[in-house]
Amino acid sequence: MKPDAAVNRRVVLAARPRGSPTPRDFRLDEAAVPTPAEGQVLLRTLYLSLDPYMRQVMDEIPPVYAPSVPLGDPMAGGTVNRVVASRHPRFRAGDLVLGRAGWQDYALSDGQDLVPLGALTQPSLALGVLGMPAFTAYVGLLDIGRPQRGETVVVAAASGGVGAVVGQLARLKGARVVGIAGGADKCRYAVEELGFDVCLDRRDPRLAEHLAAACPNGIDIYFENVGGAVFEAVLPLLNVGARVPVCGLISHYNEETPPAGPNLLPGVMTAVLQKRITVQGLVILDHYADRFDAFFRDMGEWVAAGQVKLREDVVDGLENAPTALIGLLQGRNFGKLVVRVADV
Amino acid sequence: MKPDAAVNRRVVLAARPRGSPTPRDFRLDEAAVPTPAEGQVLLRTLYLSLDPYMRQVMDEIPPVYAPSVPLGDPMAGGTVNRVVASRHPRFRAGDLVLGRAGWQDYALSDGQDLVPLGALTQPSLALGVLGMPAFTAYVGLLDIGRPQRGETVVVAAASGGVGAVVGQLARLKGARVVGIAGGADKCRYAVEELGFDVCLDRRDPRLAEHLAAACPNGIDIYFENVGGAVFEAVLPLLNVGARVPVCGLISHYNEETPPAGPNLLPGVMTAVLQKRITVQGLVILDHYADRFDAFFRDMGEWVAAGQVKLREDVVDGLENAPTALIGLLQGRNFGKLVVRVADV
Repeated sequence: MKPDAAVNRRVVLAARPRGSPTPRDFRLDEAAVPTPAEGQVLLRTLYLSLDPYMRQVMDEIPPVYAPSVPLGDPMAGGTVNRVVASRHPRFRAGDLVLGRAGWQDYALSDGQDLVPLGALTQPSLALGVLGMPAFTAYVGLLDIGRPQRGETVVVAAASGGVGAVVGQLARLKGARVVGIAGGADKCRYAVEELGFDVCLDRRDPRLAEHLAAACPNGIDIYFENVGGAVFEAVLPLLNVGARVPVCGLISHYNEETPPAGPNLLPGVMTAVLQKRITVQGLVILDHYADRFDAFFRDMGEWVAAGQVKLREDVVDGLENAPTALIGLLQGRNFGKLVVRVADV
Repeated sequence: MKPDAAVNRRVVLAARPRGSPTPRDFRLDEAAVPTPAEGQVLLRTLYLSLDPYMRQVMDEIPPVYAPSVPLGDPMAGGTVNRVVASRHPRFRAGDLVLGRAGWQDYALSDGQDLVPLGALTQPSLALGVLGMPAFTAYVGLLDIGRPQRGETVVVAAASGGVGAVVGQLARLKGARVVGIAGGADKCRYAVEELGFDVCLDRRDPRLAEHLAAACPNGIDIYFENVGGAVFEAVLPLLNVGARVPVCGLISHYNEETPPAGPNLLPGVMTAVLQKRITVQGLVILDHYADRFDAFFRDMGEWVAAGQVKLREDVVDGLENAPTALIGLLQGRNFGKLVVRVADV
């Protein structure tokens, strides 16, 4: 599918979802390709990253987290772009950059949100193992989780963009890694390809029992990116001094009201007290200034050495992004989900 | 009331409480005064500290927190003691010590759990403003909360042993302090005597609304020692980067099963994520080796300078300890609760 070069196709937010998003919450429209002013560049989107946090910015949420997408605006999202035209001194036509162009073919930028990608041979990596999801894993696991040799680390969505990297980094640090993923294929991949010690199927009705068996020494770090039943299975296994970086809660994003009881909060707070647990929220946007350079250097070495890898799940065509995001929220992706919007 | 010197009166745990403890869960019995072996001292209890955590050790709880009191054993508790007889090289008869003799007139010790108190003129202070409650406030507020000038700190049980010290330390660090306490007398005391900026009545049905009005810049530190409705009122006001040291949950100690819904846990975890909140459990026993000396030096100076004070609520007679603890769990004490067991 080759879009008309004179038209900017955009997927805009048509309605705020009630519960799970549906295709009707999105609308594909067309606008004129914008013209850069002095100090701006015109970007062509090559790859669009789809990530669980996108469900949150479809809602009206506190401005502290990330800006809500206004109704009628293009959906927000990280992108790999080619500079098509530049009136900015730091960029030239043809440059490959990491940007935040959102769900559209073309966008303008003043350059402040752009990171030059040089001659990265596989540019979509900048959205995955060298980008935001892996950076989230890096800061959440290493800075908040602080894994020690011989400790036990548990992470869900184990074949996804964040979870897969959490598990591999924890292994690099000498921890035992127990993953949780949706289905036998993803679990096999986590163990055989990513080196997890164990991976359990989240749909197994005996998940709590199997998790206890897989963690004979308890759990020292639970990297929280899903919430819900997984957290409930983890809670009784947490050790004294356990750390719980909270980087996502995908199982709750479609909830409209507090779920029915019982109220689990007092029990969780009692465990936090009695076991001296640290629960800490992480929004990766906070850490680019301080930690991205260290991440990019370290992860570049680990990827080059084959110590960390990340499967990509590539969807073709901007018009398929809504369906792909809806599937991501249901766990239908297998690996880091990206949309190929145009050829490099 | 002058107990027979040849008899060791003990308040033992007669039954594990179902919900709120009742007098029938305790039993006053008498035993022989024990005789110290080589390396032991015989302690006479002068003051017994009553603290909310005692409700927890009446239950069968995870051994990671504190040992459960076995049925038929004397209730556990921190004490100020006079050494009556010593076969230990470091102690002499007549020495005043801080110990853990529990709810009884006499106890043996091998000296390892004893802290010499020298000639402390008001020895009960070692159970309050120079002891465990104030040490909990010191570590929880300063090490976990880390108050900065101009930040807003909220603490409940504001006239109690921990809360009163939290508020005064936060003021010393230049923070705005909003207390919550049970009733007008305690609130007036927190503001007029302890220097809190505001203190709200926890029984006020409009507590959440008044708390929001009292915290126009949100809440940076919530020192959690109560749980329940106070935490629910605090949650929407927490700022980005807020810290929540969890030192106690008195409102939940008498609960037997998870309370009815809705389930507030997902909403709390969402706030932790979106606002990058840190929730960290604190058990003060962990910190004596590292931090007690600094606490004792700092707090001694602040107390001597009149910058920190703590009202004592003194109950006379070991036999009245059960009723006093039951009252403490209902908020009937006013200040740090201690039992005077014998004259100094």
